Amino acid sequence: MAVRVGILGATGAVGQRLIQLLEPHPDFDIAALTASESSAGKSYREAAKWRADSPIPANVADITVGPTEPDAVPSDVDLLFSSLPSSVGAAVEPDFCEAGYVVSSNSSNARMAEDVPLVIPEVNADHIDLLEVQRDDRGWDGALVKNPNCSTITFVPTLAALAEFGLEKVHVATLQAVSGAGYDGVTSMEIIDNAIPHIGSEEEKLETESKKLLGEFDGASLQQNDVAVAASCNRIPTIDGHLENVWLEAADELTPEDAAKALEAYPSVDLPSSPDPLIHVFEDLERPQPRLDRNLGGGMAVSVGGIRESTFGLQYNCLAHNTIRGAAGASVLNGELLLENGYL
Amino acid sequence: MAVRVGILGATGAVGQRLIQLLEPHPDFDIAALTASESSAGKSYREAAKWRADSPIPANVADITVGPTEPDAVPSDVDLLFSSLPSSVGAAVEPDFCEAGYVVSSNSSNARMAEDVPLVIPEVNADHIDLLEVQRDDRGWDGALVKNPNCSTITFVPTLAALAEFGLEKVHVATLQAVSGAGYDGVTSMEIIDNAIPHIGSEEEKLETESKKLLGEFDGASLQQNDVAVAASCNRIPTIDGHLENVWLEAADELTPEDAAKALEAYPSVDLPSSPDPLIHVFEDLERPQPRLDRNLGGGMAVSVGGIRESTFGLQYNCLAHNTIRGAAGASVLNGELLLENGYL
Amino acid sequence: MAVRVGILGATGAVGQRLIQLLEPHPDFDIAALTASESSAGKSYREAAKWRADSPIPANVADITVGPTEPDAVPSDVDLLFSSLPSSVGAAVEPDFCEAGYVVSSNSSNARMAEDVPLVIPEVNADHIDLLEVQRDDRGWDGALVKNPNCSTITFVPTLAALAEFGLEKVHVATLQAVSGAGYDGVTSMEIIDNAIPHIGSEEEKLETESKKLLGEFDGASLQQNDVAVAASCNRIPTIDGHLENVWLEAADELTPEDAAKALEAYPSVDLPSSPDPLIHVFEDLERPQPRLDRNLGGGMAVSVGGIRESTFGLQYNCLAHNTIRGAAGASVLNGELLLENGYL
Amino acid sequence: MAVRVGILGATGAVGQRLIQLLEPHPDFDIAALTASESSAGKSYREAAKWRADSPIPANVADITVGPTEPDAVPSDVDLLFSSLPSSVGAAVEPDFCEAGYVVSSNSSNARMAEDVPLVIPEVNADHIDLLEVQRDDRGWDGALVKNPNCSTITFVPTLAALAEFGLEKVHVATLQAVSGAGYDGVTSMEIIDNAIPHIGSEEEKLETESKKLLGEFDGASLQQNDVAVAASCNRIPTIDGHLENVWLEAADELTPEDAAKALEAYPSVDLPSSPDPLIHVFEDLERPQPRLDRNLGGGMAVSVGGIRESTFGLQYNCLAHNTIRGAAGASVLNGELLLENGYL
Repeated sequence: MAVRVGILGATGAVGQRLIQLLEPHPDFDIAALTASESSAGKSYREAAKWRADSPIPANVADITVGPTEPDAVPSDVDLLFSSLPSSVGAAVEPDFCEAGYVVSSNSSNARMAEDVPLVIPEVNADHIDLLEVQRDDRGWDGALVKNPNCSTITFVPTLAALAEFGLEKVHVATLQAVSGAGYDGVTSMEIIDNAIPHIGSEEEKLETESKKLLGEFDGASLQQNDVAVAASCNRIPTIDGHLENVWLEAADELTPEDAAKALEAYPSVDLPSSPDPLIHVFEDLERPQPRLDRNLGGGMAVSVGGIRESTFGLQYNCLAHNTIRGAAGASVLNGELLLENGYL
Repeated sequence: MAVRVGILGATGAVGQRLIQLLEPHPDFDIAALTASESSAGKSYREAAKWRADSPIPANVADITVGPTEPDAVPSDVDLLFSSLPSSVGAAVEPDFCEAGYVVSSNSSNARMAEDVPLVIPEVNADHIDLLEVQRDDRGWDGALVKNPNCSTITFVPTLAALAEFGLEKVHVATLQAVSGAGYDGVTSMEIIDNAIPHIGSEEEKLETESKKLLGEFDGASLQQNDVAVAASCNRIPTIDGHLENVWLEAADELTPEDAAKALEAYPSVDLPSSPDPLIHVFEDLERPQPRLDRNLGGGMAVSVGGIRESTFGLQYNCLAHNTIRGAAGASVLNGELLLENGYL
Repeated sequence: MAVRVGILGATGAVGQRLIQLLEPHPDFDIAALTASESSAGKSYREAAKWRADSPIPANVADITVGPTEPDAVPSDVDLLFSSLPSSVGAAVEPDFCEAGYVVSSNSSNARMAEDVPLVIPEVNADHIDLLEVQRDDRGWDGALVKNPNCSTITFVPTLAALAEFGLEKVHVATLQAVSGAGYDGVTSMEIIDNAIPHIGSEEEKLETESKKLLGEFDGASLQQNDVAVAASCNRIPTIDGHLENVWLEAADELTPEDAAKALEAYPSVDLPSSPDPLIHVFEDLERPQPRLDRNLGGGMAVSVGGIRESTFGLQYNCLAHNTIRGAAGASVLNGELLLENGYL
Repeated sequence: MAVRVGILGATGAVGQRLIQLLEPHPDFDIAALTASESSAGKSYREAAKWRADSPIPANVADITVGPTEPDAVPSDVDLLFSSLPSSVGAAVEPDFCEAGYVVSSNSSNARMAEDVPLVIPEVNADHIDLLEVQRDDRGWDGALVKNPNCSTITFVPTLAALAEFGLEKVHVATLQAVSGAGYDGVTSMEIIDNAIPHIGSEEEKLETESKKLLGEFDGASLQQNDVAVAASCNRIPTIDGHLENVWLEAADELTPEDAAKALEAYPSVDLPSSPDPLIHVFEDLERPQPRLDRNLGGGMAVSVGGIRESTFGLQYNCLAHNTIRGAAGASVLNGELLLENGYL
């Protein structure tokens, strides 16, 4: 029997992706949608400016959008996906958890909080049990799990696959798609025939979230990984798909051949949204490319190419679909992990 | 009295930029244009598919294009600018030098040859006197000077400005404009809503040319700089202007404030095409941007922004116009240096 | 039992789309691939520079590409899809037909020949029987059927749906995607931050092919429709999807409401690739848009919006996917019609 | 002696263009800048997010921005350029005129008012004397003159040049740059790899403003031209430059050769911002193109190409820079006309 789920912040760009992914989902039924006050009371069709490249699902279009408050969500809804702006998420997500809802959130607030699991199931599924610490700490019936930033999700699975060689220093430069800033985040005047360096606060996310994701959880507390990451983030004129250049200095000898083998062998997990293979390795040095490769594995795969010796250590490029693997799909996958592990 | 100059490979993208820059030049008069066999004998108007964003200069349009052979260039032409494909450049540039012509070349062949000066006048003007070694070695009346690759030119002036702090390790990721590949180099199907990692052979150029440019010339031989550079080069959908992310680990302490001061203080040279200031430093972290900043200093300036502490050393972004400062303008500036130093 | 089919010109952009559409097709099995001399003898994987946004199908990758000659195609192949350059098509398609092959061709040659059916099955399926005249005329065992140009296919179904009101004058301006020019047809330097008016020979195709498609076939000869069309064709920086502005002056009164009803009611045909509905009508005046709507009906639908009164008659916008509905899918659909009508 | 001028709405995209054009202007000195309440009291440097592709002029950067009220503008300012949002313009422009200021406005409000001259100096400079009627009617010491919409300005000069042949029916399809919608008007998610048909209210402007511009003023009242125009307006991914496809049915015979001659012969006017020639005629059928031709005549020229016989009458394409000739430059040129005609 399908779990009834809701979406907090359902009208935004990630909210629309969540609807595209959840509507055909085998285990989840969309039963509640919330948005800001100005949208509450309208049908979703009226409230959302639907801009996805497939028509709005008919059964979703007629749902009445509620305000983003615990009282407004039916109590038989078990799981909420949150794509709220981070300031709103910080204000209201704890209320939902306190009211007993389990929240799988893409919002950037609270990602680094000590008792909040930050999870990519193929990388650190075991961190989900940090929820027991969280419930003890906070006295919640509900729970709050986070997925990382889209640019973090793109390169961390590749680091996880290579962790056996001893991660020491990582440099990463990102070429990020405009959808990562939300529908209205980047104007056309800003980006056509242009690129914007230094995306605000994005670099810090790559540098800190990666340490937490690759950390060790012993059942009681989380020990962060001590890999040192230096990031430089750029916005470019692509719609979807973040491309990243990575340099890795490892403790052990790490040849391009060994790296390719470890990346190809890195396993997916047995959840509906985890693709098999998780990581596609290209021999073609000019791949992966955003428009050609972002939809691999239904947008949930990570692709890697250009693996080669560098002046310092190893060098490669990686790519993932930022609003699927990097946002909406990441939250759905965490929802599947919550279901699998008995948190619903 | 103006020097009579010619352009080898005048119909290509860099050739057209050379015409735009040379036509109003105070010291140079365009007196000869060469191209491939199929164009020889035609007027430049007929031979070139002129695609610049200003009309073709009237006096240039009527020049008859000659074949790219020393005999076809009038002997009262003193200086040749070469924007030949590198395989053609390798084959014919020595013939022109042997025939007594001084060649300022943008072609990538022979840049790393021991007796060929590779010059950015603001960085290593003194290397020009390697031409005396060259003439001795080769018995030429003419001479061959090279400017570096467009992506090298963008970041090397910033390294030169910071060299006093002791350059040790440099990581550089480039976001390069399509014009860098020539007019037909990148198809629209390849690059719209896309990015292409790992531009073939470009990374090696940044890694090797930078060592030569920053090297010491003692009047007899050139000692390369031992800075270690690791590059990752990407093509993005911009027309002109290469943006680069740089991480620098220096021997001495190097704060962002010290770096900004050194960059702003770095001098231009007293030649017509050298802009003053050479380096524009932006406080705005989101600058420089290709479309907004590529035309600073008439396209001959380098701009720098986002100077900040990094996980490892210092981090900043830099930008230059790839077909002006990075190609045609670089060759013209070297021509001016040749004139100033008595090589014409 | 599936029909064995081949593709003439299998390595180009339309050839690759044909493979994407034919590989999962219920009635057709890919059994032969041809290309130019330089590719013959190679596996398809080696011969094609595969650039589609899904991986090359495994069973197709290993097929050995043959030369584009009748002798090189196995005789048990019944149907050939041709995406040859028009000059090549003009030279070799008749040879294949004479050798007994039925050819469904996207090439522009011979489209206006009197005994060659030019067919969009939802518009003029009955024209297919012009093949009997063709076989009588030419003594062929095979047959040659053509689909129209991609920009013609976009607007002719809308005219067919409104034909009952009496078509008199049509003005059409097109905004065409770069894929319509083939993979290398438009360079990035030509089209980024730009648009190109007057696509060579495209305007004439819209003006003439539409008359033939909307003509009457009485079983013996084809009487062209006398609608007068004036076209203006532009290339813009989109990957796929041709958008067209249409003004229609009809003989009878034609309100926007009547037009919308007639367009929505216009039927698809009972063939696997014909979508239902064929025509999507948007109330939103700002639709259809290439990126959002090109994939409706698996890329085989036509969409219409902005239906409104004009200073002269009626005005609306329409859109179709140019390499699916407008090229590869059009040929596949004609192949289905040939099968249905007993020509295989 | 230079006239002291002010800019109403100085921080927006057109306001920034006005500063670029006015700063080096021979007859005008920038003496006052206004913006919305939130900017008032700040220096222009602080108030404006300067995004032009040349640095902010130093003397302008330090001007204190005032509120958009007559009392806040020094009384020795004689001429105001207005680039206010139309709703704001409608509310406050009359107050400035009543207070004695002469206003040259780009805002769309009041363009069609009977006693407001709508002027392109090269087309209908004599309409400026409608200001006498205006002053009589309204009892103003000041005056209000308007320039038309950017898409109107692009094609009306071509119609004026051909008016001697008897203008009857015009169809025009526009391909408009994103800057026409203001800096934040079109998001990148809306337009990359896309096009948007039917720009709201734009079509009506082309259809109505053209009649007024081409009308006859007898010193007392304005008789509109009875040319019938049907417009279809599209937004495409270009930064600057509107390209338009025009079909013209004239009363008299009009060959492409006659049209080319009339267009080339059409005169500019003797004002500093009017370029000579006004209209550039290309023989190349694929010109004009936005990126290549928008800067002709300093962005103040109109270019025309692809002049050819059409199924109905004549057909051609035209282009102008939408934020220079189509907005800021148009207002400046009207300011010059006001000065020349003694209205300051």
